[in-house]
Amino acid sequence: MTDTVSTIISPEGSLEVLSQQEVNRLRDTSTGGVHDILRRCALAILNYGALTDDSRSVLETYHDFDIEVLQQDRGVRLKLTNAPAHAFVDGRMIRGIRELLSSVLRDIVYVSNEIQDQPKFDLNSTDGVTNAVFHILRNAGVLAPSNDPSLVVCWGGHSIGRVEYDYSKSVGYHLGLRDLDICTGCGPGAMKGPMKGANVAHAKQRRKHGRYLGISEPGIIAAESPNPIVNQLIIMPDIEKRLEAFVRMGHGIIVFPGGVGTAEEILYLLGILLDPKNKDVPFPVIFTGPSSSEEYFRKIDDFIAYTLGEEARKLYKIIIDDPAEVARTMRAGVDDVTEFRRNQQDAFYFNWRLSIPEDFQAPFEPTHEAMAALALHKEQPTHALAANLRRAFSGIVAGNVKENGIRAIEEHGPFKLNAEPALMARLDELLTSFVEQGRMKLPGSEYVPCYTL
Amino acid sequence: MTDTVSTIISPEGSLEVLSQQEVNRLRDTSTGGVHDILRRCALAILNYGALTDDSRSVLETYHDFDIEVLQQDRGVRLKLTNAPAHAFVDGRMIRGIRELLSSVLRDIVYVSNEIQDQPKFDLNSTDGVTNAVFHILRNAGVLAPSNDPSLVVCWGGHSIGRVEYDYSKSVGYHLGLRDLDICTGCGPGAMKGPMKGANVAHAKQRRKHGRYLGISEPGIIAAESPNPIVNQLIIMPDIEKRLEAFVRMGHGIIVFPGGVGTAEEILYLLGILLDPKNKDVPFPVIFTGPSSSEEYFRKIDDFIAYTLGEEARKLYKIIIDDPAEVARTMRAGVDDVTEFRRNQQDAFYFNWRLSIPEDFQAPFEPTHEAMAALALHKEQPTHALAANLRRAFSGIVAGNVKENGIRAIEEHGPFKLNAEPALMARLDELLTSFVEQGRMKLPGSEYVPCYTL
Amino acid sequence: MTDTVSTIISPEGSLEVLSQQEVNRLRDTSTGGVHDILRRCALAILNYGALTDDSRSVLETYHDFDIEVLQQDRGVRLKLTNAPAHAFVDGRMIRGIRELLSSVLRDIVYVSNEIQDQPKFDLNSTDGVTNAVFHILRNAGVLAPSNDPSLVVCWGGHSIGRVEYDYSKSVGYHLGLRDLDICTGCGPGAMKGPMKGANVAHAKQRRKHGRYLGISEPGIIAAESPNPIVNQLIIMPDIEKRLEAFVRMGHGIIVFPGGVGTAEEILYLLGILLDPKNKDVPFPVIFTGPSSSEEYFRKIDDFIAYTLGEEARKLYKIIIDDPAEVARTMRAGVDDVTEFRRNQQDAFYFNWRLSIPEDFQAPFEPTHEAMAALALHKEQPTHALAANLRRAFSGIVAGNVKENGIRAIEEHGPFKLNAEPALMARLDELLTSFVEQGRMKLPGSEYVPCYTL
Amino acid sequence: MTDTVSTIISPEGSLEVLSQQEVNRLRDTSTGGVHDILRRCALAILNYGALTDDSRSVLETYHDFDIEVLQQDRGVRLKLTNAPAHAFVDGRMIRGIRELLSSVLRDIVYVSNEIQDQPKFDLNSTDGVTNAVFHILRNAGVLAPSNDPSLVVCWGGHSIGRVEYDYSKSVGYHLGLRDLDICTGCGPGAMKGPMKGANVAHAKQRRKHGRYLGISEPGIIAAESPNPIVNQLIIMPDIEKRLEAFVRMGHGIIVFPGGVGTAEEILYLLGILLDPKNKDVPFPVIFTGPSSSEEYFRKIDDFIAYTLGEEARKLYKIIIDDPAEVARTMRAGVDDVTEFRRNQQDAFYFNWRLSIPEDFQAPFEPTHEAMAALALHKEQPTHALAANLRRAFSGIVAGNVKENGIRAIEEHGPFKLNAEPALMARLDELLTSFVEQGRMKLPGSEYVPCYTL
Repeated sequence: MTDTVSTIISPEGSLEVLSQQEVNRLRDTSTGGVHDILRRCALAILNYGALTDDSRSVLETYHDFDIEVLQQDRGVRLKLTNAPAHAFVDGRMIRGIRELLSSVLRDIVYVSNEIQDQPKFDLNSTDGVTNAVFHILRNAGVLAPSNDPSLVVCWGGHSIGRVEYDYSKSVGYHLGLRDLDICTGCGPGAMKGPMKGANVAHAKQRRKHGRYLGISEPGIIAAESPNPIVNQLIIMPDIEKRLEAFVRMGHGIIVFPGGVGTAEEILYLLGILLDPKNKDVPFPVIFTGPSSSEEYFRKIDDFIAYTLGEEARKLYKIIIDDPAEVARTMRAGVDDVTEFRRNQQDAFYFNWRLSIPEDFQAPFEPTHEAMAALALHKEQPTHALAANLRRAFSGIVAGNVKENGIRAIEEHGPFKLNAEPALMARLDELLTSFVEQGRMKLPGSEYVPCYTL
Repeated sequence: MTDTVSTIISPEGSLEVLSQQEVNRLRDTSTGGVHDILRRCALAILNYGALTDDSRSVLETYHDFDIEVLQQDRGVRLKLTNAPAHAFVDGRMIRGIRELLSSVLRDIVYVSNEIQDQPKFDLNSTDGVTNAVFHILRNAGVLAPSNDPSLVVCWGGHSIGRVEYDYSKSVGYHLGLRDLDICTGCGPGAMKGPMKGANVAHAKQRRKHGRYLGISEPGIIAAESPNPIVNQLIIMPDIEKRLEAFVRMGHGIIVFPGGVGTAEEILYLLGILLDPKNKDVPFPVIFTGPSSSEEYFRKIDDFIAYTLGEEARKLYKIIIDDPAEVARTMRAGVDDVTEFRRNQQDAFYFNWRLSIPEDFQAPFEPTHEAMAALALHKEQPTHALAANLRRAFSGIVAGNVKENGIRAIEEHGPFKLNAEPALMARLDELLTSFVEQGRMKLPGSEYVPCYTL
Repeated sequence: MTDTVSTIISPEGSLEVLSQQEVNRLRDTSTGGVHDILRRCALAILNYGALTDDSRSVLETYHDFDIEVLQQDRGVRLKLTNAPAHAFVDGRMIRGIRELLSSVLRDIVYVSNEIQDQPKFDLNSTDGVTNAVFHILRNAGVLAPSNDPSLVVCWGGHSIGRVEYDYSKSVGYHLGLRDLDICTGCGPGAMKGPMKGANVAHAKQRRKHGRYLGISEPGIIAAESPNPIVNQLIIMPDIEKRLEAFVRMGHGIIVFPGGVGTAEEILYLLGILLDPKNKDVPFPVIFTGPSSSEEYFRKIDDFIAYTLGEEARKLYKIIIDDPAEVARTMRAGVDDVTEFRRNQQDAFYFNWRLSIPEDFQAPFEPTHEAMAALALHKEQPTHALAANLRRAFSGIVAGNVKENGIRAIEEHGPFKLNAEPALMARLDELLTSFVEQGRMKLPGSEYVPCYTL
Repeated sequence: MTDTVSTIISPEGSLEVLSQQEVNRLRDTSTGGVHDILRRCALAILNYGALTDDSRSVLETYHDFDIEVLQQDRGVRLKLTNAPAHAFVDGRMIRGIRELLSSVLRDIVYVSNEIQDQPKFDLNSTDGVTNAVFHILRNAGVLAPSNDPSLVVCWGGHSIGRVEYDYSKSVGYHLGLRDLDICTGCGPGAMKGPMKGANVAHAKQRRKHGRYLGISEPGIIAAESPNPIVNQLIIMPDIEKRLEAFVRMGHGIIVFPGGVGTAEEILYLLGILLDPKNKDVPFPVIFTGPSSSEEYFRKIDDFIAYTLGEEARKLYKIIIDDPAEVARTMRAGVDDVTEFRRNQQDAFYFNWRLSIPEDFQAPFEPTHEAMAALALHKEQPTHALAANLRRAFSGIVAGNVKENGIRAIEEHGPFKLNAEPALMARLDELLTSFVEQGRMKLPGSEYVPCYTL
């Protein structure tokens, strides 16, 4: 039997001062259409300790978990039924978890009530999407105008092995020693290591206000629960806005070894930076891992060289097995960003200047049809190919870990991808190497591909 | 020649993180319909030192003053042209003034963009108005959920003499010694004295976060400029919402001697508290002044007894010439409010429970027709009479100090009020006593009544 | 009958963590030799509101006041018997007063236990005295290594009239607007005005940590009770160490109109600054007052010109009736001090570099013999004459306001001063002008000189 | 070749405001008798990363390291020559290390100048020793009067294996989740694990001011370098005062598996708690470890039963393999301590009430003679036997890891202990089990006993 707790808690932060109308709407909203999303995200937060990347198994284990918003004169309360017991200490919820839970409620309700179907936000226009991303972040209170640039986005797999995990921790440690903060997509592996490392380094450097920022989305959060070290959590409504949040808030990006999710992120990033409009925008990007991962990055590098060309290879540095050098290089890169923004009188907290083509903003729904229809050939502009490859990888991620994707694969069999032969060969080689290196699943489980080429 | 400064400054607080769309709208809004309101309010802030209650004379002195919102990549800047020099120290604007200026911009733009003509706020319904008031206050950041009740609203004349001013300062001092904070309508006289007194007392009690809250509105601010001791300023869109803000935020009210404005406030307050729905809501109200003002309160007390009856007299205490006793009584009253809210699980920061009848919420436009049509007789429920008397006094205030009102009087002559004879006699007596006591104008100027009975 | 309160309170700050031995010693010390000093100083603190400059009348009014240190396991408590009621609000001591009371206890006990008769401090050597001054200040926690220079010492009379008081307040206001802090000798008049003005200005500039530093000594405190706005109080053991504390901590000095005490301070300051060793040490000094005080400074200026010569006149500026100009000049002067200290790597919080000749450090006991024996003639080096004149004025201050001095005059008649004829004439003129201008006593009382020439 | 850095740094904290005399004395002291102690302690701080428990090997590796106090007008600077490079990040010393270095200097100089040979401290009396301990702690700023009891002392071996280390980390994590802070003797193993665990838990609970207190002494610090997570470090002058500091500051004690050092600490603690004067003083003590360490505690438990009797066994609980239960039990115990101190009006920050017999305070110098002369038999009061056993273990620790001890063993061969046969057998069994379990040396090195029985 699973150990659970049922209780009523007070939310934190921006949910403390609500109008009676808002409380009503919050209660209604949370029981209406978004209740299921809310319930799943909340469960992910409460369940952070358990390691699994199958979001359905969590939902099954805690099938009778529920969350309800109660109205009280002095504000709202959250009623939790059959919540995972490890979120509590002697009956009291861990404060960091309570904060994250409040963040989830805050973002889901904000998006549902203030963004979607609001005339104010034209989600079909580039400007409209960026504006929505900005408002979600501001409403979350994570745009800090008085901070100097320090936010390093760390990408990489959630299913990496111990050596790679320890390496990511060491990189985080060296970043933290240099007064840099960490932003990841939440979850285990390369998303947790850098935060843990930075947390220790910040303690040693007496950095009281270190930031550990997690950006997630409802489809992924169950598989990538935020560790409570995360002290600022944002739930973006979909994968594309999540990616935009990363690149507009981060002052530099480090890529650790990972699987298709990481490949998706790399293609997204390079696709954008290849846009001529972004030519002069400084954006430090480093690929790094321990010696044992060198091969991984060589494969990625080759694939990029073939698909996006030499121009794309100039946009990142590969540093192998040298955490201190990674941190030094990133510190220098962030300093360049700082100087550039200062000269341009750009905001430090949001990169308005970065151009993100529509291709990279439009949500991609990975149905079997959509996956099969992707134009995977070199007879198109580089950035269009990058966008399509990004979508292909995004679909595979869905088939691996997202609830909808897993169900679709169960019903209709693996996705069928169509690519021109030479590209197909490269793609096959890359994906096969991911499978062989065990990068598709958490250690210990066996991977059955959700695609065929 | 008037001493002025032209400069560009950065705003403070909530204006620091704006989207590009908001910056554009802010710039457009500030040059469009609300530019004139913004300009007049800004001038009032910058001109706080000069004593005058004729808003037009300020505008004439600084006729070439202007304020403009500039867009810069990193945010907005305010461009000031020919601003009063005494708002600056060696060319740098006094920080408190800069904060108040930002508050003005914040509120005017918020009301214009987010409240008015928004489907979200039904300003024709009681709930809709209260909701709007709540949102304006929350947007201003003045609803502090973690504070214990401590906010004492001080009402009274802006044109009181030295003895009454010193008395109000002494009351503020004794309130401050007892850890109470001050909320007033801004401006000189009884609105400034209590803040100055409390500021000294807070220094002596080492109270670091004393609150000096000013609630104004565009029509009155020119005559009642906020002293920069005010560290939280809110511009409500009209007099009725300003009055609602006072009674929903304040935990108790002290009334000092004043003129028609004060009488308006008293009638508003008693009219509401007489509503049977508010019967059990604790709300400490004290009328106080030095010995020399005893006659003033006797006259008010008589007028209330005649118009609203003995029931109304039970809602306040009159304490003459005893600042410490006033403070002790108010402290005890606020403690009762605290206990009541705690028991009811009501919010400390906003009195949702208080019922405000529609009569007291609907804006009253004091045209000559509207003033003449007011039903001033006792053949109506007490609260309806209170509401109509409140309107009558409100109109006279407009005719005395508001730009529109002054112009209307100049064009059409004094307002003509119609009342039943007995009430007329009482009203005449009260108003005449105000004129005789010099309570209609700042000391030194001569008063020509803007009404006939 | 006098209104009094008897109660037990907890001390603040450095008295919170004491060893059992220290608690015992504190209790013993406070009942032993220093009990009388402690009792008198405590009474001065508690009595700050009452205006009198006769320390004996305070002691008579509260003749049955007593203070006792109690030992409790968790620390010490102070037992107060028949304390002046106005130090309390509804039975609870005003927090600022409680802090000042703790400061008095702290300093008196520290000097008694750690400075006097300790081999560590050779109070007969210049270095030893300076070292003692430093330790008393550090033990009081007023040497703040992280603050930029901002401390303006304000000297002037405690018995000035309304116009001069308001002027001193205005100067304080303009200093406060420029982020300067105030240090005075405590008490009413020119010692209180600048603090009150600066307190208002700091509120307007949102300066949260404004410093209001009072430096007193046991003999003077009864006549010059610290206003509770003072948030750092130090009791130096004698007048010479008090003066040294002023010049070593202050970054500039403003002199308002005053009487002999002020003249004493001026001669002390100029005597030191005339020392060739201090030639290159920047030290801004301004004499200032309203128009009506111009004559006062002309007389002082003449007297300095005659006694100390033209060289001395270059050490100060006289600015009449222009508070903003005073503040601007002082701000510029303090900026020069900052730059100088930075260049020399000197501490900001203590002016080690300033040389103070022995003549100015040795305590002077103004007996009738000592006063009669003072060498008041020009046949000596300028700085020696300055030192002797300083002593003469110091003796007159004692005869006017200090308990011992008043008693000595009562017993032996006025002090007899001997000076060479020309100097005598000048001295007579100066002192007579002080008497005529009512600068020897608080307004309303009549002055009987305590000296003859 | 060893990687080193030579540089000049500013100290932190209490060393910021020094008199010129103090700076001189500091410089002189640091070059005089205590220079060697200072040098060794500083090196230990700077070298915290390297794992070794042979203090001499550190000193040999950095034989040309030196530290010098420089005098500058604005204060002191520390000149470091050939310091271990891993204390620096890109040439700047890690801030936590800089703080610890300042602590070392502060304590060594304070003890040398203010405690030793001062008439104020009679180090031959029980009260005098306790007073000295109190003053050293207060001077270090670690006695926090406003904190509630929360300090859990963790004892245990510095050479434990991975399983025991991870267990100690887990216990620290569960303590931290319950708002408890950690105090250890610094160094690796059981002294580091609990701090790292608590640091993560405090981050999750958003506890901003977690305390990680290290208490060391000059002889042990080289072998037990403080991890920079330690944010308050105190260097006590000898082992006995260090032990007294633990029991007077800690609100409860947890013992993890360890070797002779841990046995020494257990005997010290039980010897004191067995004193009838301490009968009613609540003091929670828990022995804990993973399942694999159960045998270890069984052996200790048997040894205690034999030597100190059943009475002693009631003073501690043994909890095996249940970190959460350890934390819950300790939390409850600390709550009892809190209540007891509150009822008795005892200080929270220093346990004055605890009686420490002279036997446990007098420093023991483990020469071969002294070791051979120890009375190890049961024909003496229990507490005397506890004291002698404590000394025996203390000597073995010295022979294992302290420089003096190692040298003595090298010169004169192993210590010879004399005990009555039955006790000898027990002692032999215990020590042999320590050797067998590898608890005498860091993992990987071979242990040659420094004693014979």
